[in-house]
Amino acid sequence: MASSRSSDGGEGRAAPEGVGLLVDLYELTMADSYLRHGLNQEATFDLFVRELPPRRNFLVAAGLESVLDFLEGLRFSPEALEYLESLKLFSREFLGYLEEFRFTGDVWAVPEGEVVFPPEPLLELRAPRIEAQIVETFLLNQINFQTMIASKAARVVLAARGRAVVDFSPRRDHGVDAALKAARSSYLAGCAGTSNVLAGQVYGIPVYGTMAHSYVMSFEDELSAFRAFARDFPQNVILLIDTYDTLQGARHAVEIARELAPQGVRVKGVRIDSGDLARLSREVRRILDEAGLADVQILLSGDLNEYKIERLLREGAAADAFGVGTEMGTSYDAPALGGVYKLVEDARGYRIKLSAGKATLPGRKQIWRACGDDGRMCHDVLALADEPPPEPAARALLVPVMRGGKRLGPPEPLHEVRERCLKNLERLPEPLQRLERPSDYAYPVRLSPKLEELRARMLREVAQANAKRAS
Amino acid sequence: MASSRSSDGGEGRAAPEGVGLLVDLYELTMADSYLRHGLNQEATFDLFVRELPPRRNFLVAAGLESVLDFLEGLRFSPEALEYLESLKLFSREFLGYLEEFRFTGDVWAVPEGEVVFPPEPLLELRAPRIEAQIVETFLLNQINFQTMIASKAARVVLAARGRAVVDFSPRRDHGVDAALKAARSSYLAGCAGTSNVLAGQVYGIPVYGTMAHSYVMSFEDELSAFRAFARDFPQNVILLIDTYDTLQGARHAVEIARELAPQGVRVKGVRIDSGDLARLSREVRRILDEAGLADVQILLSGDLNEYKIERLLREGAAADAFGVGTEMGTSYDAPALGGVYKLVEDARGYRIKLSAGKATLPGRKQIWRACGDDGRMCHDVLALADEPPPEPAARALLVPVMRGGKRLGPPEPLHEVRERCLKNLERLPEPLQRLERPSDYAYPVRLSPKLEELRARMLREVAQANAKRAS
Repeated sequence: MASSRSSDGGEGRAAPEGVGLLVDLYELTMADSYLRHGLNQEATFDLFVRELPPRRNFLVAAGLESVLDFLEGLRFSPEALEYLESLKLFSREFLGYLEEFRFTGDVWAVPEGEVVFPPEPLLELRAPRIEAQIVETFLLNQINFQTMIASKAARVVLAARGRAVVDFSPRRDHGVDAALKAARSSYLAGCAGTSNVLAGQVYGIPVYGTMAHSYVMSFEDELSAFRAFARDFPQNVILLIDTYDTLQGARHAVEIARELAPQGVRVKGVRIDSGDLARLSREVRRILDEAGLADVQILLSGDLNEYKIERLLREGAAADAFGVGTEMGTSYDAPALGGVYKLVEDARGYRIKLSAGKATLPGRKQIWRACGDDGRMCHDVLALADEPPPEPAARALLVPVMRGGKRLGPPEPLHEVRERCLKNLERLPEPLQRLERPSDYAYPVRLSPKLEELRARMLREVAQANAKRAS
Repeated sequence: MASSRSSDGGEGRAAPEGVGLLVDLYELTMADSYLRHGLNQEATFDLFVRELPPRRNFLVAAGLESVLDFLEGLRFSPEALEYLESLKLFSREFLGYLEEFRFTGDVWAVPEGEVVFPPEPLLELRAPRIEAQIVETFLLNQINFQTMIASKAARVVLAARGRAVVDFSPRRDHGVDAALKAARSSYLAGCAGTSNVLAGQVYGIPVYGTMAHSYVMSFEDELSAFRAFARDFPQNVILLIDTYDTLQGARHAVEIARELAPQGVRVKGVRIDSGDLARLSREVRRILDEAGLADVQILLSGDLNEYKIERLLREGAAADAFGVGTEMGTSYDAPALGGVYKLVEDARGYRIKLSAGKATLPGRKQIWRACGDDGRMCHDVLALADEPPPEPAARALLVPVMRGGKRLGPPEPLHEVRERCLKNLERLPEPLQRLERPSDYAYPVRLSPKLEELRARMLREVAQANAKRAS
């Protein structure tokens, strides 16, 4: 189910050796310089988001699996080293270092499918500084994107109120990796499956799809098209009924269902992709029900998003499932997540960045989550890693996932991640389950007194030290 | 320079065999059905955009190289076939067909780097219908994304008015393939290079980058950091001067330039990443000039886009180059391009889709572009493929690029594509070079009288036929 690695190689693979060079050049020049200056002591970096993107009430963690796969497999191939040498920038010593490179660090992370809030770290990485530096670009690339899609998809899933949502986005996603991981991240966030066959193969996600309008138009008439398809795929009969006239299409679906019932062929569903979906779906439902086909499902699609789905349901649309493409696969209304990766501790102790609007929290951390008697999330406490739980029932969100460059366990089955996410969505405070940003409520993320005190002290110290350094 | 294929395999490759299954499931079910019903005659599909996205005045064609690479190499591996078989949907006959699959069709396309306008086809593909159907998802995925990024990047390049623009987007791009192709598409549209080392390796794009704030903070003081870096990379000294105090940083850059000049080390530039960039850059310019360092360049970065760059230059910013990340790499303000792929001709003749707002233009086509005496584009004529040029000097934009599944030439060197694009941007009508959508001008894309007549006739015929088919 949840293998993140395609057996046939190529772009389908989550993190082959070839992506070692998916790195901003400055990571490598800095790393070379650190090596020359002996600045390769252990350092801890936090990957976190400073604030929620517009129109988001929470984030759903995703991307960890790609990261662990990458860290464990990261090598620099002879071709990569040859290319770097051709840039005539790097020292022999550094190229030799890369030739032998293995990631040897430790990673703590919020498991995929957990809900997180800024500025909680999604991931904490402790490694020799150069290793930690070199992996920054890839980690941000993957976690920013996948968390963004999972967070968007969770909204669509919430809006669908228990109805199935299927990812229809491959043709609008940003390339091959995006299409794969949009399918994975949206499934993880509660979608039922994807139209993307490669994602089905690579991740074991259920795949969905039957026909396009062009198929219906390839036959002499609609009834012939439906009949051909139902006979060809008797176990997967979902008929697209809006090519010519949706209500007439529904009657044709009824006709085919009756005609082929004696042969044991059951029409599973119909899809409507255009027009006034609320009204049409109700009328189609009535046509199907009156024909005794109450079990035939209705799938709606066509430039949908969470707002349109909410409105459709409010308007009484008869929908069992929604196909959602562009807006979910690109997180159209917030298409980039601003996650950052910052030094919080090194050989010299706690570290902090002092910059307007860009301050960081020092030290290795733990996120503690407290829930109410109803099981709903109440508040989080962000504490230093070695502090005891702030209250006995609080749950720790950051868990160790890699030690000495080795994963601490096999990949989590993706359907388990999905179940965790669905549970989390149920446990969200009610105002956060709505699509609009609540005006009178923000989820409380508190700092532990110890972390708060440390931060205040360091801000003072660093302000003084910076004044001196800049001089 | 322009190899689109990484030698070390993996996700860096443009179109390995593994992506054959990057296809919406319905393409395969339809294909299986077409095979069973003998519906595999030659068909022609147009890939086009119905209308410009918000805040875009033109499109820059990109993605063709990925498509040709994909079409030439498309195979279904034993693992892919095994997966498809496991779905228990497909006929033996169809799985056998896929096992032997080779793309055998012809392709005409607008070369990368050309400017196009809706509804001009970016690509026209003629192949046995099943082949044409199966490749739809990948073609749309790649051309939609890459054309979208090239079109956004061209705006940034125009706003920079001759100053260099560097892609800084990998950490916010939608995955690995997106980071690679964002670098390629933005370079193709006139950017000077990228921070993405993998894109440098795969496409031969110039790579840029030196240091982050964390580097400066890793040393005892700013001067020590600058000194270390300049000594380590004497040929690539660009100093980030805003970690503590930008003007003081500029003076430190001057100090280092003087200190290391006797050793032949030249400070090439300084980068400012925060604050009031217009004011700071002017003051930094003055500090550098007064120190006799008029040749030290100033690079500005920090959440830039075309609007901010235009404003900076209007406010007199002293900038030689801009680093642009998130907004360019994700086309943030229009993060999906709605390209579609529609049947225009098949064994039965011209085809048309009749649907409110979704009508297509029948037949194989040619785009003719007419320019004025000043070399600027005047208007385009969209004609049937076999029509003569509407005027003697008009230039044909669709050129044959693949015949019988084989490319008609080697990949174009990417720097030549870039030069073509830069020339095209110069030749744009002046209103289209502005960032705002002109309220009183739209680029004229006319239909030839023959195409217009055919379209009108077919709309009538199809409306009648559909009424019959739906009944």
